[in-house]
Amino acid sequence: MNVPTPDSLGPSHVAPPVEDPMDRTRFPIDPWRLVETRFSGDDLGTTESLFTVGNGYLGLRGNYEESRDAYHDGTYINGFHETWAINHAEEAYGFARVGQTIVNAPDPKVIRLYVDDEPLHLSVADLLEYERSLDLREGVLTRDLIWRTPAGKNVRVRSRRMVPLGQRHLCVITFEVTLLDQPASVALSSQLLNRQDVWHEFGDQSAGRGVAEGGDPRKAETFQRRVLVPDFDHADPQTGRLCLAYRTAESRMSIGVVADHHLSSRVPFSSKVESEDDMAKVIYRVAAEPGVPITLTKTVAFHTAQSVPPRELLDRCERTLDRTHEEGLEQQFADQRAWLDTFWSRSDVEVHGQPALQQAIRWNLFSILQASARAESQGIAAKGVSGSGYGGHYFWDTEVYVMPFLTYTMPWAARNALRFRYTLLDSARRRARELAQKGALFPWRTINGQEASAYYAAGTAQYHIDADIAYALSQYVGATGDDDFLHREAIDILVETARLWADLGFWRDESRRTFHIHGVTGPDEYTTVVNDNLYTNVLARFNLRRAARAVDELAVDDPEAYAQLVRRTGLAEGEAAEWADCARAMAIPYEEHLGIHPQDMHFLEREMWDLEHTPLEKRPLLLHYHPLVIYRFQVLKQADVVLALFLQGEEFTPEQKKADFDYYDPITTGDSTLSAVVQSIIAAEVGYHDLALRYFLSALFVDLDDRHSNTADGVHVASTGGVWSALACGFGGFRDIGSAQGGSQWKIDPRLPTSWDALVYRITLQGTRVRVTVRADQLELCIEEGSGPLTFDVRGKSITLAADQDDGRICVPLTHQGPRLKGEPPHPAGTQRSDGTVISAIVPSGE
Amino acid sequence: MNVPTPDSLGPSHVAPPVEDPMDRTRFPIDPWRLVETRFSGDDLGTTESLFTVGNGYLGLRGNYEESRDAYHDGTYINGFHETWAINHAEEAYGFARVGQTIVNAPDPKVIRLYVDDEPLHLSVADLLEYERSLDLREGVLTRDLIWRTPAGKNVRVRSRRMVPLGQRHLCVITFEVTLLDQPASVALSSQLLNRQDVWHEFGDQSAGRGVAEGGDPRKAETFQRRVLVPDFDHADPQTGRLCLAYRTAESRMSIGVVADHHLSSRVPFSSKVESEDDMAKVIYRVAAEPGVPITLTKTVAFHTAQSVPPRELLDRCERTLDRTHEEGLEQQFADQRAWLDTFWSRSDVEVHGQPALQQAIRWNLFSILQASARAESQGIAAKGVSGSGYGGHYFWDTEVYVMPFLTYTMPWAARNALRFRYTLLDSARRRARELAQKGALFPWRTINGQEASAYYAAGTAQYHIDADIAYALSQYVGATGDDDFLHREAIDILVETARLWADLGFWRDESRRTFHIHGVTGPDEYTTVVNDNLYTNVLARFNLRRAARAVDELAVDDPEAYAQLVRRTGLAEGEAAEWADCARAMAIPYEEHLGIHPQDMHFLEREMWDLEHTPLEKRPLLLHYHPLVIYRFQVLKQADVVLALFLQGEEFTPEQKKADFDYYDPITTGDSTLSAVVQSIIAAEVGYHDLALRYFLSALFVDLDDRHSNTADGVHVASTGGVWSALACGFGGFRDIGSAQGGSQWKIDPRLPTSWDALVYRITLQGTRVRVTVRADQLELCIEEGSGPLTFDVRGKSITLAADQDDGRICVPLTHQGPRLKGEPPHPAGTQRSDGTVISAIVPSGE
Repeated sequence: MNVPTPDSLGPSHVAPPVEDPMDRTRFPIDPWRLVETRFSGDDLGTTESLFTVGNGYLGLRGNYEESRDAYHDGTYINGFHETWAINHAEEAYGFARVGQTIVNAPDPKVIRLYVDDEPLHLSVADLLEYERSLDLREGVLTRDLIWRTPAGKNVRVRSRRMVPLGQRHLCVITFEVTLLDQPASVALSSQLLNRQDVWHEFGDQSAGRGVAEGGDPRKAETFQRRVLVPDFDHADPQTGRLCLAYRTAESRMSIGVVADHHLSSRVPFSSKVESEDDMAKVIYRVAAEPGVPITLTKTVAFHTAQSVPPRELLDRCERTLDRTHEEGLEQQFADQRAWLDTFWSRSDVEVHGQPALQQAIRWNLFSILQASARAESQGIAAKGVSGSGYGGHYFWDTEVYVMPFLTYTMPWAARNALRFRYTLLDSARRRARELAQKGALFPWRTINGQEASAYYAAGTAQYHIDADIAYALSQYVGATGDDDFLHREAIDILVETARLWADLGFWRDESRRTFHIHGVTGPDEYTTVVNDNLYTNVLARFNLRRAARAVDELAVDDPEAYAQLVRRTGLAEGEAAEWADCARAMAIPYEEHLGIHPQDMHFLEREMWDLEHTPLEKRPLLLHYHPLVIYRFQVLKQADVVLALFLQGEEFTPEQKKADFDYYDPITTGDSTLSAVVQSIIAAEVGYHDLALRYFLSALFVDLDDRHSNTADGVHVASTGGVWSALACGFGGFRDIGSAQGGSQWKIDPRLPTSWDALVYRITLQGTRVRVTVRADQLELCIEEGSGPLTFDVRGKSITLAADQDDGRICVPLTHQGPRLKGEPPHPAGTQRSDGTVISAIVPSGE
Repeated sequence: MNVPTPDSLGPSHVAPPVEDPMDRTRFPIDPWRLVETRFSGDDLGTTESLFTVGNGYLGLRGNYEESRDAYHDGTYINGFHETWAINHAEEAYGFARVGQTIVNAPDPKVIRLYVDDEPLHLSVADLLEYERSLDLREGVLTRDLIWRTPAGKNVRVRSRRMVPLGQRHLCVITFEVTLLDQPASVALSSQLLNRQDVWHEFGDQSAGRGVAEGGDPRKAETFQRRVLVPDFDHADPQTGRLCLAYRTAESRMSIGVVADHHLSSRVPFSSKVESEDDMAKVIYRVAAEPGVPITLTKTVAFHTAQSVPPRELLDRCERTLDRTHEEGLEQQFADQRAWLDTFWSRSDVEVHGQPALQQAIRWNLFSILQASARAESQGIAAKGVSGSGYGGHYFWDTEVYVMPFLTYTMPWAARNALRFRYTLLDSARRRARELAQKGALFPWRTINGQEASAYYAAGTAQYHIDADIAYALSQYVGATGDDDFLHREAIDILVETARLWADLGFWRDESRRTFHIHGVTGPDEYTTVVNDNLYTNVLARFNLRRAARAVDELAVDDPEAYAQLVRRTGLAEGEAAEWADCARAMAIPYEEHLGIHPQDMHFLEREMWDLEHTPLEKRPLLLHYHPLVIYRFQVLKQADVVLALFLQGEEFTPEQKKADFDYYDPITTGDSTLSAVVQSIIAAEVGYHDLALRYFLSALFVDLDDRHSNTADGVHVASTGGVWSALACGFGGFRDIGSAQGGSQWKIDPRLPTSWDALVYRITLQGTRVRVTVRADQLELCIEEGSGPLTFDVRGKSITLAADQDDGRICVPLTHQGPRLKGEPPHPAGTQRSDGTVISAIVPSGE
């Protein structure tokens, strides 16, 4: 499962993935569960990420309770981080100063089992049965096994683990041991374990700072010093209640963890407790009899804060646990099921006739949920709460890849994510000042609001994050009609981002014919610090227009709110008009002869990289070539122009979309997991149906098939979000044109793959939930909740859906699934430029 | 002296420097000495650099023997360095891995004086007389003072310090104390002191790695760990011989230091010795009588090596000292004088009628000498051996700024410097491979041959260092006729650098019309990673041509040597022809309407920075703006196109030179000290005489007037070299056209400033030394050594000079000193571009 396959790197030049790449003898198909039927020590990191349970605040990796076989025992709390001074090897003004790294919180998962003093240790145990499953409707991770001990006694061990989605701070674990044939002495050692400080001496050269493992910038930094400074520990011998409390050494955050235990058995047992700085535990000894289950219930509460004393957090934990105790354990499981029933009714996507894909799709959607449900006042990290990859940072991934799912299926979560950005606005204003700009510049990567990107060329230079946030905001407001949020708070984001663009760009001529934005990096990180990046300029144009429109509308609609806006932001007379003017004149690179949009003003002057003949062992390029080499070439890490074609589709003609896709697709490596979903959507739109499906499968199995060999560091949350977009927008053909621009105008132009019987997805617009069913010959729209009316453009025909008409259900016959192109995009090497010269390609080597 | 003046930053927009900015009440004019007549604790760092004595191998900063009043007690040995792993805040493939930092060697300067147990401590002492002088003909630093002790006794203290130029490893110090009126107990404590390990705890976040002070990338890194690991220490009670030996912790270099002492006095004295890990000392107690001098002579030897046991180095030190002892002390001083007599006879430059400038010029020339004389198998560091700035690294500065002086006045030193580069060739080949290139890529900054530049955009990306080395090499061979060196070794450098260019650049069209070099940084570091940087392409073209010519000539002239070359380098059939073709088609950016050469292909698309209205507190820009901001603008750190106009002057018309200078000069900040000398030379050539003189003065006093506020970190050696070029080539009008291209063709077209009576400089060409005297109405050429014949083009007229004709002396009447332009270059803001639009300028601010 974790063996890199030749096509794990994504581009169309390499062998297509099989439709179902998973080993079904180990991971059988199940529509509502991810199931593993055989223990393997070979891909522990991957399965830990896949079997994570979390709620967007608290996440427990899928480590085994015995915690002996593990790639990385991880427990993460969104936003709970340590800071460190970034030491640049060579300093310069304005470089990011404060490193931020998510902290591995004290581990509540540990329950060690001893039978006749022999420990259960999976990798060496004689397992007669084994099943682990993550139930996507129950929201529970279950493991069920029969262990034949060295003494030949058979023992059933069954555990359940849940992080409730209906609340933030809790996790529940049950651990049940049943001797099947002979009596034995059973011991259970349940722990809270601060693993984060089990650090090693790696030599002095990196002491104290965060160092990414193996120099791979995609991994989290590790510390070679104590991060969690003990504040309090206690273990109550009467109740088995364990408490640990800490402060982080530098960021001065506090954390409290309390675990309650309840052992239930018909046979006698004894217990004792221990606690010290980095561990608290309770140990039960039971004289177990065959057929008599021993059930340990462990409920654990976590509270974290920036400025609350750790011991006060322990009080909060105890209140959480006391309440849970009053409600009873089974109520927690019932609540979880109810919560998920609601979730699936709003968010499920069905693919009929494709059970393997169905399972993978649901796992992807469930992963978005686990990353976002209770993120609340925090952002949504690149790995959610499933791993420490990218240090627990928030990126533009949230806005462009995760927000569409949230906006259209769980808008309250979208609102939280946007309000989180709103709380960063002051830091973003300060950051803009450091970069000598007006307005606000959001950090490229951050936890606490400060820029943490230590490589500005592929970090701070990605100014487009400002427009991405404005875009997601506009999409949310348009889809929900939440004008109140827009007018009271979010409009400030529009104003400050528009200001940044107007100040960052410049008029090269006094007649103000074109407005240029220089020295920025677009989404594609294989060229950096370029002039007039197409994506950036197109999104900045949107940002400027949207801000101008919002301000103008507010002035008319709500003069009082407008006056407050002016007071808050110092908005000047004529500012909005200036933004509109910048937008009007925005430089949009276009090459007449090729009929394509250069990725930046000088992109086509670059040499062409011959991806086809680049050996696989040189992929991904970023790990095998110096940036200076990569930057010289026409070669893409991820979709850039093609992403703009999706997000601002109305700004391009179908011919341009095809030409751009044809040009860029063959030179896109897909070295970023953000790429395949976008390539899938535009491939579907322009008519490359097979390719669209291939990219979709690539994204769908990014983690389930560990296609980038780093799922061990956590789930690729942006890709899981992109999977939804690829389904709803790519194959499902949904486009929210209006809300992106600041109105309400929706199109549906589906592209059902021929191998699928039907595709069903749900979209909630302005409070009305519509179920969209795409079949080869028919599109069905059906109101599932709310009343409408909603009007859709279905291939040029306007369809109005209302609950009080035809039971809120309309069927539209389909005669085709969009254009259908033969073959694949031609490689640009060999084609002619406008100057008549022919494009050739090389592989840089030095040999 | 170290107060930054408004014009300390150099560009023409700010007030011109006064002709003589030095405080002459403290530093009186003296044609052959730098003299200080008053102690000041305010600018210790600057005067320590100015009063450095060194020989290119060993350097002692001008610290006082008492070592109580010091900015930085520094003792440097060229190439003696520690290494450390560079921790990039965000890693990427091919980033520099091994940091290298010159080590502060054990300090031999310390001699502490106590009179009646009261220490001499200059900043609080009652000094009745004080003079410190560096004699540029004697090569000796002398200090002479009368101290009135707290008890009211007057004591004359006189010390001399010398680092012999005739050998590498020695320094000599004499310290003489004479009571002038009353008897007293005198104690002298002479030490060897390892200061480098007197380190402090700066918190753990930077432990062990090199961190540049205050984040200023121009400063050396300091270590927060032990660097010199003690190997041996000893103090001989009989002879006063002190020994210390160490290894560096990471680079595993070894150093041995031995000091001999001799106390001479007519009164009785006693002595005792001590030694420990980081110090060895001998203490003399003398019952001193008035009028009876006490003279302590301290001779110290240093030896360093990469792989020799430290104790073996102590043996070498003892041999050095034994030999010195046999020769006698006064012989050392006599040798030094004789050595310098020869030096000045070959290298002196005289400016008649300008005594203040004459003194400053000689100090500058002496500083080049001190940085280079015995560098031998090492490079010539940016600060020579006068300070730790830039970590003791070697840069392109050597080839472009220092080598001309060496080549034309002390060619054996030039040869050493080139052979040093030759020894780096294998590392440079490996580095090219890391950058996916053929050939060799010399490190942008290094001590041990490995790239140490941690910021590639203004480091590794400066590929032009390859061409700079090829240029200096060609200049040396042409000026000296040292074909043997070329054919046996140096030609390999030409081959491998030409290979790099041919591989780095590319043909955009199959018809091979133009050859482009993308993604490089030119000398100007205020734009980076650009396409077709003019300087780079022009010098690369030279490099390609020169290599092709050398290879072709060798094939004809010496088939056997050619065969060896082919064996050494794998030179293939047709390679040289390919280089010539690349050179022929090299892209040279040119803008027709403005008639200028854009600094890079897209330079003119950048916004214009309004330097005139940029507040002085925002200078230098690099310390006040994020690189992303600076890079977006037309604003220069240093001459770039203008440097190409100098080095490859024959490739440009006079009109182009004027147009380019006019365009770039007003947008050049001069934030680099490498800029003013070049601006001076081209200003003189095109006819801005006053401006040329202003830039020259700016460079002449860079250190003497601490104009960049960092002379404390060491002498700006490149600028001292540039001062010579500005004299010989700028005002003196000398151009070596032939040797740069691979032949012998010399021009003289002088530009004598009106305020100078005469300018006299010496040039050694092919073994013949010519004295050139420029007067307002006459140019005199006179052979001082050798026989000639040498032919010069003097303003179009061919002049042949030979020892056997007219006593080797020719006078050419001059009717003018070149073109004379009025005013100053106009600021480009306000001028029109080719598209008819007008250039405007702004100051980025964010407010």
